[in-house]
Amino acid sequence: MSSPHKTIIKCITAICDKKIFILNFLLLFSFLLHAEDGYDLWLRYKPVSDAAVLAAYKQKITAVQLNGNSPTLQVIKEELSMALPGLLKTAIPFASDIKNGSILIGTPSASSIIRSLGLDAKLNSAGEEGYLILSKTINGRSSIVITGNSDKGVLYGVFAFLRLLQTQQSIQSLDITSAPLIKLRLLNHWDNLNRTVERGYAGFSIWNWHTLPGYIDQRYKDYARANASIGINGSVLTNVNANATVLSATYLEKVAALANAFRPYGIKVYLTARFSAPVELGRLRTADPLNDTVQQWWKDKVKEIYTLIPDFGGFLVKANSEGQPGPQNYGRTHADGANMLADAVAPYKGIVMWRAFVYSNEVPDDRHKQAFNEFVPLDGKFRPNVMVQVKNGAIDFQPREPFHPLFGAMPKTPLMMEFQVTQEYLGQGTSMAYLAPYFKECLESDTYSNGKGSTVAKIIDGSTQNYSMTGMAGVANIGNDINWCGHPFAQANWYSLGRLAWNHELSSDQIADEWLRMTFTNDKQFVTTVKSMMMASREIMANYMTPIGLHHIMGTGHHYGPAPWVKLARADWSPVYYHKADSAGIGFNRTATGSNAIGQYFPGARTQWENPATADERYLLWFHHLPWTWKMRDGRTLWDELCYKYNSGVDSVRWMQKAWNVQQSKIDNQRFQQVKMLLAIQQDEAVWWRNACLLYFQTFSKMKIPDQYEKPNKSLEYYMQLRFQFAPGN
Amino acid sequence: MSSPHKTIIKCITAICDKKIFILNFLLLFSFLLHAEDGYDLWLRYKPVSDAAVLAAYKQKITAVQLNGNSPTLQVIKEELSMALPGLLKTAIPFASDIKNGSILIGTPSASSIIRSLGLDAKLNSAGEEGYLILSKTINGRSSIVITGNSDKGVLYGVFAFLRLLQTQQSIQSLDITSAPLIKLRLLNHWDNLNRTVERGYAGFSIWNWHTLPGYIDQRYKDYARANASIGINGSVLTNVNANATVLSATYLEKVAALANAFRPYGIKVYLTARFSAPVELGRLRTADPLNDTVQQWWKDKVKEIYTLIPDFGGFLVKANSEGQPGPQNYGRTHADGANMLADAVAPYKGIVMWRAFVYSNEVPDDRHKQAFNEFVPLDGKFRPNVMVQVKNGAIDFQPREPFHPLFGAMPKTPLMMEFQVTQEYLGQGTSMAYLAPYFKECLESDTYSNGKGSTVAKIIDGSTQNYSMTGMAGVANIGNDINWCGHPFAQANWYSLGRLAWNHELSSDQIADEWLRMTFTNDKQFVTTVKSMMMASREIMANYMTPIGLHHIMGTGHHYGPAPWVKLARADWSPVYYHKADSAGIGFNRTATGSNAIGQYFPGARTQWENPATADERYLLWFHHLPWTWKMRDGRTLWDELCYKYNSGVDSVRWMQKAWNVQQSKIDNQRFQQVKMLLAIQQDEAVWWRNACLLYFQTFSKMKIPDQYEKPNKSLEYYMQLRFQFAPGN
Repeated sequence: MSSPHKTIIKCITAICDKKIFILNFLLLFSFLLHAEDGYDLWLRYKPVSDAAVLAAYKQKITAVQLNGNSPTLQVIKEELSMALPGLLKTAIPFASDIKNGSILIGTPSASSIIRSLGLDAKLNSAGEEGYLILSKTINGRSSIVITGNSDKGVLYGVFAFLRLLQTQQSIQSLDITSAPLIKLRLLNHWDNLNRTVERGYAGFSIWNWHTLPGYIDQRYKDYARANASIGINGSVLTNVNANATVLSATYLEKVAALANAFRPYGIKVYLTARFSAPVELGRLRTADPLNDTVQQWWKDKVKEIYTLIPDFGGFLVKANSEGQPGPQNYGRTHADGANMLADAVAPYKGIVMWRAFVYSNEVPDDRHKQAFNEFVPLDGKFRPNVMVQVKNGAIDFQPREPFHPLFGAMPKTPLMMEFQVTQEYLGQGTSMAYLAPYFKECLESDTYSNGKGSTVAKIIDGSTQNYSMTGMAGVANIGNDINWCGHPFAQANWYSLGRLAWNHELSSDQIADEWLRMTFTNDKQFVTTVKSMMMASREIMANYMTPIGLHHIMGTGHHYGPAPWVKLARADWSPVYYHKADSAGIGFNRTATGSNAIGQYFPGARTQWENPATADERYLLWFHHLPWTWKMRDGRTLWDELCYKYNSGVDSVRWMQKAWNVQQSKIDNQRFQQVKMLLAIQQDEAVWWRNACLLYFQTFSKMKIPDQYEKPNKSLEYYMQLRFQFAPGN
Repeated sequence: MSSPHKTIIKCITAICDKKIFILNFLLLFSFLLHAEDGYDLWLRYKPVSDAAVLAAYKQKITAVQLNGNSPTLQVIKEELSMALPGLLKTAIPFASDIKNGSILIGTPSASSIIRSLGLDAKLNSAGEEGYLILSKTINGRSSIVITGNSDKGVLYGVFAFLRLLQTQQSIQSLDITSAPLIKLRLLNHWDNLNRTVERGYAGFSIWNWHTLPGYIDQRYKDYARANASIGINGSVLTNVNANATVLSATYLEKVAALANAFRPYGIKVYLTARFSAPVELGRLRTADPLNDTVQQWWKDKVKEIYTLIPDFGGFLVKANSEGQPGPQNYGRTHADGANMLADAVAPYKGIVMWRAFVYSNEVPDDRHKQAFNEFVPLDGKFRPNVMVQVKNGAIDFQPREPFHPLFGAMPKTPLMMEFQVTQEYLGQGTSMAYLAPYFKECLESDTYSNGKGSTVAKIIDGSTQNYSMTGMAGVANIGNDINWCGHPFAQANWYSLGRLAWNHELSSDQIADEWLRMTFTNDKQFVTTVKSMMMASREIMANYMTPIGLHHIMGTGHHYGPAPWVKLARADWSPVYYHKADSAGIGFNRTATGSNAIGQYFPGARTQWENPATADERYLLWFHHLPWTWKMRDGRTLWDELCYKYNSGVDSVRWMQKAWNVQQSKIDNQRFQQVKMLLAIQQDEAVWWRNACLLYFQTFSKMKIPDQYEKPNKSLEYYMQLRFQFAPGN
């Protein structure tokens, strides 16, 4: 080549280099200015970092053909307009013609091309909400089809497709059919009308009732987007400890405004119904469910609701529990109460979710047994549009808890799962506890209700007992903190709830993998290390809080920190009721020689816990009161095992700190520092738990903390005088 | 030119064009993904939009020479690292040598070059906190010097320089000397330890006490940055309705963590002191300020505070007002109480701010008069480190209120101003009310205390009465909403407070201009139109809420919406006490024939209000009870004038809506929509105010609403039955 030409080429190269430099600089800069504050959750749509993968995507994605113009298609368009340029660093046009790299999106009824692809069998298995993502050659053009039987299914398919890109999966040859295993996939918000959140650790309620209906906060839409991206299709807006005011005309207008904001994202709204609302709002003298006037009041109220919100989902009810009013106030049963509401909503295809979390201090029996005792006799007595919502365990969302004995015990009544996403008993807002393994532990438990393999998952997905309706709800961990969930890793629990409600067969590992890649980075070393932290995190917490089956020894009311010494007037709110430590030993005897709560389980399930010598030791003190010198299978005494577990928990938090500290270069500084500070707090809390519990239990065991362990640096008296007047979520 | 050369040049051009396209696309895209959620306030640092101005800036700013390495210099570096690339679209290096376009930053003591520039006289007039921004030729290089006598002054100078760039001012020939006219420029947070905020309309407290001291929220730093950028140098963290718990050891550690986060930004922390803390925390039997044990308790507590926070600012106290404990509980005076605390903090150079907002329901006199009556006799009896903090008016932050008669009446006691930035009585979280004109109206009022020209501004800046300390505080409107202040335009009031505390001679117009350019855009048409909305907004609100001197007719407790009909057991909390409407007329006679509150003003001030025939009609009903047929100077009857004003207010809100709607293309969609929705709510509220007030007052006037006005479409009974159980800030 001649010299002038070389010069010109050098010149071009220099210009290009400079531009590329500026381009990269600007990209970097845009990230700098807009710190990673966590608001974007797992929908960050950052550029695909692997150059080969990016190149492959760019070849496969050159244009989008959208079919249909419903509000849901509109939100699909908005999402793709944000996501594709973000991921691919280039504009992807919406176009009506088909080229190589077209993404065809829509239902078969909206697109004759999709209709012509012979997808009937696949579409049939996708059901009403499922989706297909398929590589297809159309008119000789290599295309990708995202379809489903409803726009909602298509929306889920689009989010699934984006998830593939976000996690840098191959899209060379796609043949995906996905349908949810559970129909109702709900968040329960324990949000009060004054915006406090019961058991909320991420600020206050995102529902700003005062400015509704006129002001539609951007958060409402981003909340709906995030939920749709993980398949959640319903939201119970208000606390189960309900306030009737939300059923007043003024508030129903506000609820309708939220319903309108959520509708394009396939999310229905539900409300909690305060059972005494006819008295409080309607000025009736009674709320007796068999009273005609009461029934009419509810029918009128429901009509009013459906006039404003034609697709209103229905009611969630906590009745006759912890002081809430209910049918028993009038000598009626839970079924009487539920059926009255069910009859009111039935003409509109609404449902009633009646909570099984009921217990009374007046019943002298083991609280563990009360829900079973009250509900099993009612099996078959509920209307078809009633579901009974059952917590994962019989006590209350403990760090480890055996599955609830109601699962499998009510074959004629659709039972739905209530998980707690918010970490009331699992470190609240300051600890890392990845809950997918917790949820899975319950889902995979075998009830033996219909022989071996009758897992809880198969109860609630209806496959064992052929329920007409199926559901899974999670008590939300969402607040008005900028990052929604307070702890950056708490977002993973919201994510997990949605993913497992869609498909409970997903592994915890896979869910963590997806979430980390989308939320932080696809960097392999980061994903591997941090995933190992997540996978261990809940077990670590069980170790330093409530090892070997201990439970409910948290601080009174707020449940923050250890307080095993507390004895309240109400026995079944008292830690001493649950651990029963004395000079003879520790643990709650729930076998036949004790409360016999174990008798509520099917024999096949019982065997894993019944004999202390062979029992799963993770549940040992849940079911047995054992001497301090009881020999564990590792050879340690029970006391030494307690010392070992508490110390192991503390050590593991320190391991998490070290594992995190080496990630600094992998992610943004803001979230790195956040998690670092929170892990330091968690370390302090783990030490506090260990010290307080061992010092307290030592007053009974009179045994020594083995030499190899760190000694408590504060006294039991110190821990006992701690007070947390303003602990959140109380 | 030969053809091949042309082709090559075309090719280069094409490459460039494409790159520039991508570049612009990415910039645009980075804005799209990161919506304008308002978190960045007026510190957005978007690229300078005027090409000529940008080119001039790039010539004048090529490098930064930072002198010094204090934490404050570090935050200067961080700020410039965000700001300059953002504004100038190019990286600006930090360099030690000087070239054309160097910005030299630092104190004279940190830089021998700056020391050599002969700036002594200018530096002298800049004082401890002021700054200089000067164009200088140094070693033949055209440079800009930003300096001051302290790093804090330099920080203020840097923010002032960035403001020039953000508002696209010329920096060709800079010769700026600026020093604050007022020493203490504070925010008062009425934030409770449970994170509710009294009179807060932007969510809940940004202080997350539960996670302090371990977790330092990014918000704390961004709060400090924002304050430093407008010259605010102190923050009272807690509500004047105080909780003693914040003085406990546990909470003081949390306070210290905030103080550490704020210190590099020149911001001191202050606390509210609950007067009965020695009883509540110290378990003493008394909080009598003359009791030795009580005095010692405070001395010990103060020592504890200063051990943790060596630069702690001092205490703000609300005592013997609205049920708060105080020295009068023990038969002592406000001076006794203030002096006891002042003696405790004096060794550490702390101060006490004692609020004059005191009144008692047991005093049968006009509430307007009580602060004056209690405090004037104490003039000269306070320690030198006590300031008395006085609200702008004698009642309570009303939409329009005459200046407080205490201003000018306590020549021996430094009085500081208390403005309310949060809009308790000015539309709360849903209305646009730009408050700089409100603040200025008070500051420019002439007290005549030392002859004509003794304005309130000259009282509080110490120039009239030679105060040893000067201060201005604003009750903050900050909450944990993503955009800090709820209403996007409420940010302007935080901004105005800081700017006016620094320099009360700035015009409202200039402050609005700066704020709009930095917060939204430099687009001329936008700035002109929206500034006219801002400038009119408070007067509009006074018209539809409390025209012609009406006041305190808001809803009980929450002060949301109109409730002129309310009569409470406590007279001076009752609207009827303030408007005194009856068949004879309306208004509060505060002249010599009435309560004679007017007698507390100096004669020169009095004349503007004393004679109803000549009085400033904006205050007419504040001082006079006048017949419904009273002739206004425009010829209308008083009743017709009320109808006119209320309707004019509503019409003006509709004008604001129209003026806003044409701005859609000028700014981001998120904030455009937010303001649009809020203006629609404001329109509804204006109609509500007009209808409710006119219908109610009509029951006394028995006069007709003139035909030309819109008629109320709801009944008085409808408005009277409205209830707002969960109104915020209550």
